[in-house]
Amino acid sequence: MSKTLDLNCDMGESYGAWPMGNDSAVLPLVSSANIACGFHGGDPGTMRKTVALALANGVAIGAHPGLPDLGGFGRRVMQITPQEAYDMVVYQLGALAAVVASQGARLHHVKAHGALYNMAAKDAALARAICAAVRDVDRELMVYGLAGSVWISEAQAAGLRVAQEVFADRSYQEDGSLTPRTQAGAMVTDAEQAVAQVLQMVLDGSVTSLTGKRVPLTADTLCIHGDQPDALRFASAIRHALSARNIRVQAA
Amino acid sequence: MSKTLDLNCDMGESYGAWPMGNDSAVLPLVSSANIACGFHGGDPGTMRKTVALALANGVAIGAHPGLPDLGGFGRRVMQITPQEAYDMVVYQLGALAAVVASQGARLHHVKAHGALYNMAAKDAALARAICAAVRDVDRELMVYGLAGSVWISEAQAAGLRVAQEVFADRSYQEDGSLTPRTQAGAMVTDAEQAVAQVLQMVLDGSVTSLTGKRVPLTADTLCIHGDQPDALRFASAIRHALSARNIRVQAA
Amino acid sequence: MSKTLDLNCDMGESYGAWPMGNDSAVLPLVSSANIACGFHGGDPGTMRKTVALALANGVAIGAHPGLPDLGGFGRRVMQITPQEAYDMVVYQLGALAAVVASQGARLHHVKAHGALYNMAAKDAALARAICAAVRDVDRELMVYGLAGSVWISEAQAAGLRVAQEVFADRSYQEDGSLTPRTQAGAMVTDAEQAVAQVLQMVLDGSVTSLTGKRVPLTADTLCIHGDQPDALRFASAIRHALSARNIRVQAA
Amino acid sequence: MSKTLDLNCDMGESYGAWPMGNDSAVLPLVSSANIACGFHGGDPGTMRKTVALALANGVAIGAHPGLPDLGGFGRRVMQITPQEAYDMVVYQLGALAAVVASQGARLHHVKAHGALYNMAAKDAALARAICAAVRDVDRELMVYGLAGSVWISEAQAAGLRVAQEVFADRSYQEDGSLTPRTQAGAMVTDAEQAVAQVLQMVLDGSVTSLTGKRVPLTADTLCIHGDQPDALRFASAIRHALSARNIRVQAA
Repeated sequence: MSKTLDLNCDMGESYGAWPMGNDSAVLPLVSSANIACGFHGGDPGTMRKTVALALANGVAIGAHPGLPDLGGFGRRVMQITPQEAYDMVVYQLGALAAVVASQGARLHHVKAHGALYNMAAKDAALARAICAAVRDVDRELMVYGLAGSVWISEAQAAGLRVAQEVFADRSYQEDGSLTPRTQAGAMVTDAEQAVAQVLQMVLDGSVTSLTGKRVPLTADTLCIHGDQPDALRFASAIRHALSARNIRVQAA
Repeated sequence: MSKTLDLNCDMGESYGAWPMGNDSAVLPLVSSANIACGFHGGDPGTMRKTVALALANGVAIGAHPGLPDLGGFGRRVMQITPQEAYDMVVYQLGALAAVVASQGARLHHVKAHGALYNMAAKDAALARAICAAVRDVDRELMVYGLAGSVWISEAQAAGLRVAQEVFADRSYQEDGSLTPRTQAGAMVTDAEQAVAQVLQMVLDGSVTSLTGKRVPLTADTLCIHGDQPDALRFASAIRHALSARNIRVQAA
Repeated sequence: MSKTLDLNCDMGESYGAWPMGNDSAVLPLVSSANIACGFHGGDPGTMRKTVALALANGVAIGAHPGLPDLGGFGRRVMQITPQEAYDMVVYQLGALAAVVASQGARLHHVKAHGALYNMAAKDAALARAICAAVRDVDRELMVYGLAGSVWISEAQAAGLRVAQEVFADRSYQEDGSLTPRTQAGAMVTDAEQAVAQVLQMVLDGSVTSLTGKRVPLTADTLCIHGDQPDALRFASAIRHALSARNIRVQAA
Repeated sequence: MSKTLDLNCDMGESYGAWPMGNDSAVLPLVSSANIACGFHGGDPGTMRKTVALALANGVAIGAHPGLPDLGGFGRRVMQITPQEAYDMVVYQLGALAAVVASQGARLHHVKAHGALYNMAAKDAALARAICAAVRDVDRELMVYGLAGSVWISEAQAAGLRVAQEVFADRSYQEDGSLTPRTQAGAMVTDAEQAVAQVLQMVLDGSVTSLTGKRVPLTADTLCIHGDQPDALRFASAIRHALSARNIRVQAA
């Protein structure tokens, strides 16, 4: 059986008069799209246009719910309760599901955004609440979350299908977590090294930690950034490297 | 065949720390609830609690989408395009549908709020856009709109089921429209007269205009206000009068 | 020289169509008002009306800036940078200062709201940023902050006048901090005990900790709650007790 | 006495993570800047940075208040009352005034944004309310408004200094109003014609209407757009043409 990898990208993060990202350029490179739902970015019109663009490119569509912090783009940690997390995920999920339904398609997955993503990767109660929201709205939806995190185990415990997410441009710790951005060596800036990291993740099911140790990890989906020219070249290089190893790019 | 009338009430219009209305008191009196979806009022947590309350009372649940004007409670006319109206109805409808689905139930209808309601009753292009949004998301949903308005005819043209809404506390013009609030006699403040108006609407399919003329009109659903003690007594009086004439109160 | 104590109360926290609090009832009991500035509550119209009410009652007016979290009423901790805190305080302070100026008066003090208040009481960098904002806009403004906290020392270091705030309805720890609400005994629910605590604070410059130890503390201003009938009776009792000891109630 | 003309430009319209415009490129070309105040665009941090940039370029700073419609960028007409207009101008004006004061400078003028600008140019009650807000906060502030409009006469009646604003890229009607964008010939797209229009405005105090008639008009300040490469070249061409006629560019 051939290996596969999903390439996912956040998109639809424009807001009103303010454009963001380069969705039409990155869409041909990915197999799934995480579309903002109006809390950290995105608005009803942007959601409609982004869903249409994703469908035209044949990629799987996921909801990308965030914290209610438009001014901070959902990147500032907020002390919300699990119940609040549950409620805001149900709401945003439903809003995007309706946009997708209005275009004759179905939602495929859910990936939280920014601070909510990072919080869910570390806080079991929060992760459980997000997974309950997904399950209560539509148990067919897949959950994308940080590979190896408590979020993944909570999603599995909730009976949901998961896609474990990995990163090409971030280094890893010995426990499989990402090196915090505040530490030296957090970012993988060399393109060759990043490609090598992705190939090891897919072919060997492991990543080499910053300290040089081999750490097992499941790589179902890779996060692609599409907001800069460099990012697009980088995504292209990864796609070519995957293709050269007969690793198929397809939605998780 | 016995006559029936739906009694509907707007609810779930609290926002965050700010309570509004008296939902638990009015719910036993009505057969359908229009629940705010977060744009003019309501928030994800309030939506969850209000849906639970409505289900516990066995009333039909409708989405109550409004203009994106929290500070103005959706009551200020905004010059939005039909496309913007379409997008904001899809979004809000979907958000509430997910909340309802998460509690194992289904959405029954859609009734626009405040200025959006009034605009849709007069502007065919806007009404058409709102109906297209409803149809594209779920063609089983019923549209509640001002009896006799262009909104009703647009909904019917879109192939949607409609419930024509009438008012006990407002007087009517000869063309079947409501007397503008800026004019004398706009409000029906006498409870007996209001009850008589409702009975004529249901039993005779007509209303007597402010000028004394008999105006034909279809009464499928009556708007009940629940935010004041008087309103509750008023709603009770209407319910008793309907019951005394064997008019069944049930969702449209 | 006679002793004095300022009684301050948060107000103007209605938002749009949603009323909150009981400002006109509590105003005769206090000597200074902290008026919400639109981020956690309050809106331009509410600010105008609340300022007019405060001026009519002859109380000193302070700005009550909060986190940009209307849905959470500014009560959820958000990880903002000191620069963000600086910017949001300058903004809100200026907005209220203009409302006050438009009515021919001047702003007297600044007291942060909710989570921002609690964060500033513990985080020196944040407290310093808030004080810099106050100083850069108007160095005559007084800063109200938790008695004995790092916020007070930062305000003094910035050359600002301070009013150290104490609470009648909260118990204290041995280090002079408030007992966290999550711990038993955090709230002082007995009215007599609360009054006794206030008198000890003013007359002896100390508070008895939950563990029974005498802890020195400066009491310039006492926080009064006005949103419930009980709160008003409580505030009245405190005022009478102060009056009976010839402690004058006046703005700090 | 030499002729002068103010060149003004809207700026500071980025919001949170979303950049907008090209403020640093257009600032050297203008003599006054209208800075967004957070309702239609702008946020506290953007306001601080934009004020600093304007001060570094030595241009006069104005407040640019808009409607509370972030999603519509303040371009959608909203039916607000004069009282609401008054309140939202006081609020936004004050917020920016504090940002300017925190950097040791003073606000120079006020120019409403988008739909609020257009509404104030036609609706005397609204214009009067906006002017009252300016006067009540700081009667030294100058009002920028559409040349010849009711807004200008209301500002003068309120005892405020005014700068009558003209446009290089819009054609005029015989009554001195702008040709609505929905009509043919509304935009002046030829650069030479636009420059000629500006020179006639300044040197002759008139404009030639779309129908060929000479219409008297006062040109105190010219609206410059800075958000596109073309716009910058266009602004440069106007500056050079003014310089060649010894018309000084300076704040109104």
